[in-house]
Amino acid sequence: MSEEVSEWRALEFFASRLDAVDDCAVIPRPTSGDLILTTDMLHREADLPEGVTPYTTGWRVAAVNLSDVAAMAGEPLALVVAAGQREFHLEFLEEFVDGVEDCCDEVGAEYVGGDLDGHDEETYVGTALGVADEPVRRRGASPGDRVYVTGELCRTAVALRRFEEGELEAANELFRFTPRVREAAAVADTASAMTDVSDGVAVSLHQLAEASDVGFDVHSEDLPLVEDAEFDDVYFGGDYELVFTAPDDAEIDLDDGCYSEIGVLRERESGVADVRLDGEEMPKEGYSH
Amino acid sequence: MSEEVSEWRALEFFASRLDAVDDCAVIPRPTSGDLILTTDMLHREADLPEGVTPYTTGWRVAAVNLSDVAAMAGEPLALVVAAGQREFHLEFLEEFVDGVEDCCDEVGAEYVGGDLDGHDEETYVGTALGVADEPVRRRGASPGDRVYVTGELCRTAVALRRFEEGELEAANELFRFTPRVREAAAVADTASAMTDVSDGVAVSLHQLAEASDVGFDVHSEDLPLVEDAEFDDVYFGGDYELVFTAPDDAEIDLDDGCYSEIGVLRERESGVADVRLDGEEMPKEGYSH
Repeated sequence: MSEEVSEWRALEFFASRLDAVDDCAVIPRPTSGDLILTTDMLHREADLPEGVTPYTTGWRVAAVNLSDVAAMAGEPLALVVAAGQREFHLEFLEEFVDGVEDCCDEVGAEYVGGDLDGHDEETYVGTALGVADEPVRRRGASPGDRVYVTGELCRTAVALRRFEEGELEAANELFRFTPRVREAAAVADTASAMTDVSDGVAVSLHQLAEASDVGFDVHSEDLPLVEDAEFDDVYFGGDYELVFTAPDDAEIDLDDGCYSEIGVLRERESGVADVRLDGEEMPKEGYSH
Repeated sequence: MSEEVSEWRALEFFASRLDAVDDCAVIPRPTSGDLILTTDMLHREADLPEGVTPYTTGWRVAAVNLSDVAAMAGEPLALVVAAGQREFHLEFLEEFVDGVEDCCDEVGAEYVGGDLDGHDEETYVGTALGVADEPVRRRGASPGDRVYVTGELCRTAVALRRFEEGELEAANELFRFTPRVREAAAVADTASAMTDVSDGVAVSLHQLAEASDVGFDVHSEDLPLVEDAEFDDVYFGGDYELVFTAPDDAEIDLDDGCYSEIGVLRERESGVADVRLDGEEMPKEGYSH
């Protein structure tokens, strides 16, 4: 490990690397749309397994927030990160900033500043600012709509097994997902409701069902799982794909390999928790932080 | 202490109380100016002494961020807060939210959402979004300008002594400062450089001197100290007043009791750290987080 530096030196590093010398970052005001704002905390005990690199840590701090911007079909503008660490090492911080910046670059966001604190447990809180012409919300789905997910589910569950097995390169790669900003933008005009899968697809489906007051019929064989995933991993969370609904006649390009249709919406029949998987009640089980 | 609740129940409380049911908060886009964004972490060990109430905790989480918006002469729009706690109690959370909201109300901001996490050490990260027609930066001061502070310095140092003495009501009151949004707006057109005093007035003066490449001559007798403060408390930090500079001919209303002139700017004579107090070098000493 590289030499430890003082908090002042670490702050100087951030100020110089990010050109963040004022009390706030200044961001040009967009010319149309609504502003959207979201924040997410990651910390060592709950979110950062042994073997995760500083680069992957930075990437993921950015990605979990940018995924929330994608979930409302927003265009990300800027990200700030508050970091708490027991001690500060420039080599770690450089790789961390590289990870945050590379993830931001993937989706057109800018890493503009943050805060640094001495803290017994490594803790990172990112906050993403975006803009959306018409934010897609969790409420808005109707009976007859179809439900889709992006990409492949259960990356995080498989990544954690790889970390445990010491397959660190594969694990870190799975842990660095690209926020689905482009995929959300492509369906922004047709999606009737949307969220990301941060706590597992079952939780997301329940959230959409509750917000829109509808029932979901989902088919397990249609759920796209990442290689080496087991079906129960869908109750694990940390997927960060999108789940969205769209009217029956919406043109969702299923051939491009990014979207999978997983079920259909109907009138609610039972209580608020009316999500059925292969005809049986799907429990609202997922990740608890 | 009231009954402990699950994280799901605590999340439901926040969602319902803040009407925050989507992946991001939606904020109307302002019609002029630049957006400004800032984030700050507070946590139990470093920032929250024994005896601080949940209400004061919430207030302060909001206030330290809104103070950064004030420091650029911005108008605060919205605040999000990520909270990490070992266990969740509705009574605590209600008082905490009251504190955040009351502080936001003082300066016209809106508390729009956040994140909740299980965490061994109580940790709160606020992020404030604001707008400023012409953000006042740390760079911009010139020789001949005068330097001012708002209000009275050393509230936090005195508050911490009150906490230690068990004078909890007085301590909590001192700990809940009002972000200087109005005072900053009143000098926005004339201030040449500005920052807040989060790490102590000596650190702030050094930051302005470095950013603007000027020297400062400050007089100790002109520094306005809060009742019961000792002079050395100015090196302690956590003041959250504003320090700003303005041209000699600017009309700063010293009679309204809010602004004090504390010194004058000149060409830099020595190294970057050219701040003199009563003619002697003033050390860049203050709060380290």
